[in-house]
Amino acid sequence: MTSITNSKSWLALAEHQKSINSAQMRDLFNEDKDRFNHNHIQFDDFLIDFSKNRITNETLPLLVSLAREANLEQWKDKLFSGDKINFSEDRAVLHTALRNRTNTPVMADGKDVMPEINAVIDKMALFSESVRSGEWKGFTGKRIETVVNIGIGGSDLGPAMVCKALKPFGAKHISPLFVSNVDGADLAQTLEKCDPHTTLFIVASKTFTTQETMTNAFSARDWVIGHLNDSAAIRNHFVAISTNKSAVEAFGISPDNIFEFWDWVGGRYSLWSSIGLSIAIFLGIENFKQLLAGAHDIDNHFKTAPLEKNIPVILGLIGIWNINFFNFKTHAILPYDQGLSLLPSYLQQLDMESNGKFIDREGKRVCLHTGPILWGESGTNGQHAFYQLIHQGTEIVPTDFIMPIHSQYKIGKNGDEHHKILISNFIAQTQSLMLGKKEEEARNEMVVAGFPEKEVNLLASHKSFLGNRPSTSILFDKLDPKTLGRLIAIYEHKIFVQGVIWNINSFDQWGVEYGKQIASLVLPELREKSATVSFDSSTNNLINYTKKNL
Amino acid sequence: MTSITNSKSWLALAEHQKSINSAQMRDLFNEDKDRFNHNHIQFDDFLIDFSKNRITNETLPLLVSLAREANLEQWKDKLFSGDKINFSEDRAVLHTALRNRTNTPVMADGKDVMPEINAVIDKMALFSESVRSGEWKGFTGKRIETVVNIGIGGSDLGPAMVCKALKPFGAKHISPLFVSNVDGADLAQTLEKCDPHTTLFIVASKTFTTQETMTNAFSARDWVIGHLNDSAAIRNHFVAISTNKSAVEAFGISPDNIFEFWDWVGGRYSLWSSIGLSIAIFLGIENFKQLLAGAHDIDNHFKTAPLEKNIPVILGLIGIWNINFFNFKTHAILPYDQGLSLLPSYLQQLDMESNGKFIDREGKRVCLHTGPILWGESGTNGQHAFYQLIHQGTEIVPTDFIMPIHSQYKIGKNGDEHHKILISNFIAQTQSLMLGKKEEEARNEMVVAGFPEKEVNLLASHKSFLGNRPSTSILFDKLDPKTLGRLIAIYEHKIFVQGVIWNINSFDQWGVEYGKQIASLVLPELREKSATVSFDSSTNNLINYTKKNL
Repeated sequence: MTSITNSKSWLALAEHQKSINSAQMRDLFNEDKDRFNHNHIQFDDFLIDFSKNRITNETLPLLVSLAREANLEQWKDKLFSGDKINFSEDRAVLHTALRNRTNTPVMADGKDVMPEINAVIDKMALFSESVRSGEWKGFTGKRIETVVNIGIGGSDLGPAMVCKALKPFGAKHISPLFVSNVDGADLAQTLEKCDPHTTLFIVASKTFTTQETMTNAFSARDWVIGHLNDSAAIRNHFVAISTNKSAVEAFGISPDNIFEFWDWVGGRYSLWSSIGLSIAIFLGIENFKQLLAGAHDIDNHFKTAPLEKNIPVILGLIGIWNINFFNFKTHAILPYDQGLSLLPSYLQQLDMESNGKFIDREGKRVCLHTGPILWGESGTNGQHAFYQLIHQGTEIVPTDFIMPIHSQYKIGKNGDEHHKILISNFIAQTQSLMLGKKEEEARNEMVVAGFPEKEVNLLASHKSFLGNRPSTSILFDKLDPKTLGRLIAIYEHKIFVQGVIWNINSFDQWGVEYGKQIASLVLPELREKSATVSFDSSTNNLINYTKKNL
Repeated sequence: MTSITNSKSWLALAEHQKSINSAQMRDLFNEDKDRFNHNHIQFDDFLIDFSKNRITNETLPLLVSLAREANLEQWKDKLFSGDKINFSEDRAVLHTALRNRTNTPVMADGKDVMPEINAVIDKMALFSESVRSGEWKGFTGKRIETVVNIGIGGSDLGPAMVCKALKPFGAKHISPLFVSNVDGADLAQTLEKCDPHTTLFIVASKTFTTQETMTNAFSARDWVIGHLNDSAAIRNHFVAISTNKSAVEAFGISPDNIFEFWDWVGGRYSLWSSIGLSIAIFLGIENFKQLLAGAHDIDNHFKTAPLEKNIPVILGLIGIWNINFFNFKTHAILPYDQGLSLLPSYLQQLDMESNGKFIDREGKRVCLHTGPILWGESGTNGQHAFYQLIHQGTEIVPTDFIMPIHSQYKIGKNGDEHHKILISNFIAQTQSLMLGKKEEEARNEMVVAGFPEKEVNLLASHKSFLGNRPSTSILFDKLDPKTLGRLIAIYEHKIFVQGVIWNINSFDQWGVEYGKQIASLVLPELREKSATVSFDSSTNNLINYTKKNL
């Protein structure tokens, strides 16, 4: 395949970018009063406003042509039909099957996977209900009050993010906690909140060998046995999400309490699988199914909507525009919802582990920029932290603002004063970033406000803003299970779209292996008394300094 | 002043960069077995290893010359001597006085500020001790069990980060909680954890007008009065950190319970002031003083150590090297300590609000890149999320690894197995990022491991790593109050150093004002029924869509 950067539409986009490089969005809005109308998509209660990006009426048609030249339509078909598009691991990519609520057959290796998927959902339903109802008992006959999910990466971020985002929908009598870091502080501080008689641990590791997860799981097991004085207690207080049945049994978990998933579920796409067990327990299986249903809605939209009106496609293409044509290499996620405060961390994995790649599908080094550095924080908190740089820094940061129209909570004056203030801040940020304020405008404002001339001269430039900074707004009615499912699926497919354009495999993660490989050489050195000399001088000295002081 | 980019050392650095642009760190380590020895600084138990940056023996002397040409020595003097270096707000910058534990006089506007500072510390000592001891009672005679700090930005991030980092040093009978976001979810979810009889609210707002803080404070006040049925309860359950005495009294707080600070304390440098009251209550005043003492150690080091051996200076200069000469515009903070999981958010404000500027001290637009986009996450969690991009992405990310040699916790096998694994991962990451793995090395590894040729051909490039990615390692013995004070002060001064080189004012934040200004126009529109037409078409439609569905 010839590189996409030589394609007709890529070259046309590069030309087009030159022609609008200096265009100001404030002028584009002035010139076209309908700019919003042809630069937004509505899907049910979702409103996606991408009019505050540096695009003209020519941009999107060119970007859509690019998507066609990159065979996006065919790649979408491959994704949904169980082709082994994760070629470097020889795997299909079927997280969409996990939420295929219509149950149409989905084939992988010539076999319909839906019966297995449904069997696991049924098993999750039974188990989560038995924990919620109190039918499931701890070793000493008490009901479960705390569920601790032990996992890392994809086995942690999704469930943790969802349980936080949907807390008002959760059981009041069960606390979901999450331990991920191998740093003993993570487990130790979590156990301080737990009663061994009423705590259930979910050990989530596909291979049941993940170093962090197993280290934490064994320490948690010691803690349970230490308190309940009987290793038989393990069966009441531990279940596993894994494919490694023998290792799970050796740990002491009953084979009945293993929840299965499949090699066509990537870690960062796994919250829809049995990895979502903590979600199902905390929110109940019906809410878990609503989460799946929301994602399924977007799968259908992504599959069937024309590219021009396809939310993940348009978001993906605008990202390409910002990254590859404007050279904006980071992307900020700014949810104006405290419940979504873990969404930036979640999307960091989803995006950066998927598209932080430099080798293409042909095994060659890419000749373009791939995935952005994704970061962010909930608003309005971020406004009092890093928005200074977003407004007045020398590096332009494209942003996604995410805003529910209704809060999950009624609190304070009239029950919605907090939320109206929140909304006013979100909207104002998108306008001020777009509009900017010229030095002469800042000057006039100060003069009108009666500042002395000396101060006007001193401050006008500092109070000026270049503006023309791109943002996309994503609004929806309220953060509930279905809506959250939709939101996550939008980002999943957006990332897929970008991976297709860049011709990379968004579903492997070879980049995380090398560090583990070297860690396995460093760990035995830390246990040795004699000085380490086998690495470079920095690494040797870091090891030896540590050993000397340990 | 002529631009620093025309200075002799800048031009020399630009030439030097060209000459080593393609140099590989793995070769530099091979060629110079002493590379670590002349590229690290030790300060007490702190070890700063910057040898894994793209520098040679020529680089640091040139960077230090640059610092001299930028008059760094003189700027340091101005900082410590109370000059009004925050010229755009006509203020001195004296957070170093707050931790001046030797009590040598520090003059601001001709007056020694130390007596006032010490009086506030004494007041904090008395108050925090009375809360900790139970002498301070709630309205119904119960002792305080929960302290809720209501503040945002600098009035939130510092205390929240410190209380999390030093949890093992905290009182077992008092929970510190933090409410910042105006989103009602933040306060509502916090109040779910509180008993109105035993909760003390600290309202932290210099002006007592911060929109988020006051909205939350008034709702918290309603909650207290609603539960205790008497507005007299406010005096027992609310204290204030503010300079606006009349507004505090109008709120119902006793003037005796106002904790003062001064206009020469910037928000993002304020945890050392009375803004640290929640820290003093949770950790006790002696630990708070240790935190101050640690920062004071670094102040002395920064003031007196030669530039070549000065930790904040060298870290700042290496940042300049990466940002301005290699064009690496982001910077990742990777603490290998779960207690420091809020440090990246804290440093986001400290760095990005300080140096995310495009106007220099002369009021002119800068002609170079200023502050980086700072982001990060605790390790090993990040390894399972975004390290894929750091290792194999197309954008190079300079990193700071932060590692305590001893854990705050003993847990699991031998009491240090978790921690040894953690350390091995940190060290391995720095080596793998530096070293990389050539495709032919990946290929040989696979051949030796017995992979079939077809698979070797398919995967070798995907398992290759470009390496040559810069990292700096910061090690210390253990995360305790003094150490944390040192760590924060290192970053404060590093940021100051960079601001001096870029010739910007690191102490104002005009960039956060514009959004607030527009929000004050949007909020009344949200309360109006009629359609909004006064903004651009995007902003109008966002407002109207919200109103229609609210």
